[in-house]
Amino acid sequence: MIEDKNQERTPLSHLGEFALIEHLTRNFKINHTSTLKGIGDDAAVLNFKDKKVVVSTDLLVESVHFDLSYMPLKHLGYKAVVVNLSDVYAMNATPTQITVSIAVSNRFPLEALEDLYAGIETAANIYNIDLIGGDTTSSNTGLLISITAIGEVDEEKIVYRNSAKPNDLLVVTGDLGGAYMGLQVLEREKEVYKVNPNSQPDLEPYTYIVERQLKPEARRDIIKLMAELNVTPTSMIDISDGLSSEIIHICKQSHVGCDLYEEKIPLDPVVISACEEFKIDSTTVALNGGEDYELLFTISQEDYPKIKANPNFTVIGFMKEEEAGMHLVTRAESKIPLKAQGWKNFND
Amino acid sequence: MIEDKNQERTPLSHLGEFALIEHLTRNFKINHTSTLKGIGDDAAVLNFKDKKVVVSTDLLVESVHFDLSYMPLKHLGYKAVVVNLSDVYAMNATPTQITVSIAVSNRFPLEALEDLYAGIETAANIYNIDLIGGDTTSSNTGLLISITAIGEVDEEKIVYRNSAKPNDLLVVTGDLGGAYMGLQVLEREKEVYKVNPNSQPDLEPYTYIVERQLKPEARRDIIKLMAELNVTPTSMIDISDGLSSEIIHICKQSHVGCDLYEEKIPLDPVVISACEEFKIDSTTVALNGGEDYELLFTISQEDYPKIKANPNFTVIGFMKEEEAGMHLVTRAESKIPLKAQGWKNFND
Repeated sequence: MIEDKNQERTPLSHLGEFALIEHLTRNFKINHTSTLKGIGDDAAVLNFKDKKVVVSTDLLVESVHFDLSYMPLKHLGYKAVVVNLSDVYAMNATPTQITVSIAVSNRFPLEALEDLYAGIETAANIYNIDLIGGDTTSSNTGLLISITAIGEVDEEKIVYRNSAKPNDLLVVTGDLGGAYMGLQVLEREKEVYKVNPNSQPDLEPYTYIVERQLKPEARRDIIKLMAELNVTPTSMIDISDGLSSEIIHICKQSHVGCDLYEEKIPLDPVVISACEEFKIDSTTVALNGGEDYELLFTISQEDYPKIKANPNFTVIGFMKEEEAGMHLVTRAESKIPLKAQGWKNFND
Repeated sequence: MIEDKNQERTPLSHLGEFALIEHLTRNFKINHTSTLKGIGDDAAVLNFKDKKVVVSTDLLVESVHFDLSYMPLKHLGYKAVVVNLSDVYAMNATPTQITVSIAVSNRFPLEALEDLYAGIETAANIYNIDLIGGDTTSSNTGLLISITAIGEVDEEKIVYRNSAKPNDLLVVTGDLGGAYMGLQVLEREKEVYKVNPNSQPDLEPYTYIVERQLKPEARRDIIKLMAELNVTPTSMIDISDGLSSEIIHICKQSHVGCDLYEEKIPLDPVVISACEEFKIDSTTVALNGGEDYELLFTISQEDYPKIKANPNFTVIGFMKEEEAGMHLVTRAESKIPLKAQGWKNFND
């Protein structure tokens, strides 16, 4: 898309660094009273009063984390913000500000960066976040985006990863594996396009999973819902690397074991049919696919009545003593040790 | 240096992402009571009580901002932290935490990243900063470092860029142009080395300026000194892009003009002699060289007696009404409009 020869292209070298930042951020509004000073000084200034401050940061690299041949830049900007916010929600906190830094090669025209920032702005508006700073620089190759998200929370509401207890229930929101299967569909279409640029892909049957990959949402609604239900998880993490990897994080940091029930893992029908089509095991996809940005948490059993009727939540297992280990209980009722097969991007 | 075939090299692919972060950050200590939770959860948690929070972020890209053929990785780690802290000091604030994200290609062995983190750790220890988070990922080409620095300050002590007044004095710390001339020396030696790899460079006469380039310091001492002298600047900025560019920032944001006196610009004798050797005008270097990480600030005239005897400070001009414009008053007493020639890294 950024190679489209028909659009107007303004080389980045036509603008200086400061003019570029000013141009890209000119529409952003400051909404939070905690933002005393946003973009435009050596640093932003924030005022959280008696709230605690939550900070999370992520780096997204072209052709490692995204492929611009099927990821529209506006979606990329949106997703880059959302994946950071997801980490803040996973602390049971409310994100309030972001900084956005980009390194970009001269092959990108200004209009491409405008698309990227349009996506960032959309996410900032929807999630009510102030853009308070950043850095814009050139790179020798592709595009790199570094975002730091800042949030606020009352100290007694913070939920860490290290506080799960034996007998707690393991709960996940939404359904899993969609983002990974969406990626498989997009990769396949890319290969078809390479062979026959006139092919007309029909992505309609895959809309749900393609959207899970290209335009994920952070589960702000769940944080609000749990507050309304008066449920405070005993531990929580967001699912960025795959269910297996995240369960292991909670278990190791909380010094507990876990039984995860394969038959309980929530899968959308589109994920199941795509798995059949691609001849991939759907449990493997849910365990190791990643990028679902759902929340995984534990609750004490006495909170179970508060969530049991709610379609947002699925109880997928329970925590055990550390010595019991971490296991997947299969549909055939055999027990397999859980392994983190998640994202290993340093392998060739 | 990282191409040295004699050292032990551990491919990054031998470690997973989490093992790599754990390994690189294993020696870092948490010192601040404001750091409730550092590395190891979805986000760090900070507690600033009634202090205001200052946030600044920078992105450093290989072969745009640094050249590993003469920049040792340990120095690079140190410098990457210091340039961020400099922005926090420029708000008259105290830096307390950093996040460090890196994107790195497989050509870097683990030992190279250990060197980088050794430099980050040294800076964190010297400046008393907690490392609270970050992200580590692969890149297809070189090395990229993204750092966010967080600091704290009492609201009444914050110094912005937009509050200089006509008749205020314009003051700079230290001396200027050293980092740029150090870079020229290093670039020259690199060319000599390419032609004759057996040449023995004698960098000794250039020690001061090479160190200004490779291992700059942030002016924490100045923030402390000004508090002791009971001087609160009316505006302040750090010099990262060059004196000219920074003066223009203050003037434009404060809606004031300025007369800058060429003869007052502080230059070290090593800078002057290097400028003669390289046949570069020393004023041009001070105005546009950048990377000096000195502080530039304005004070009301009544504060002048508090700083006048102090060798850390040089009064280089004074602020005027906006309509008077921004000028360099040359040694020949002619007036030249100030222009920002600073760093334009999007030009080919």
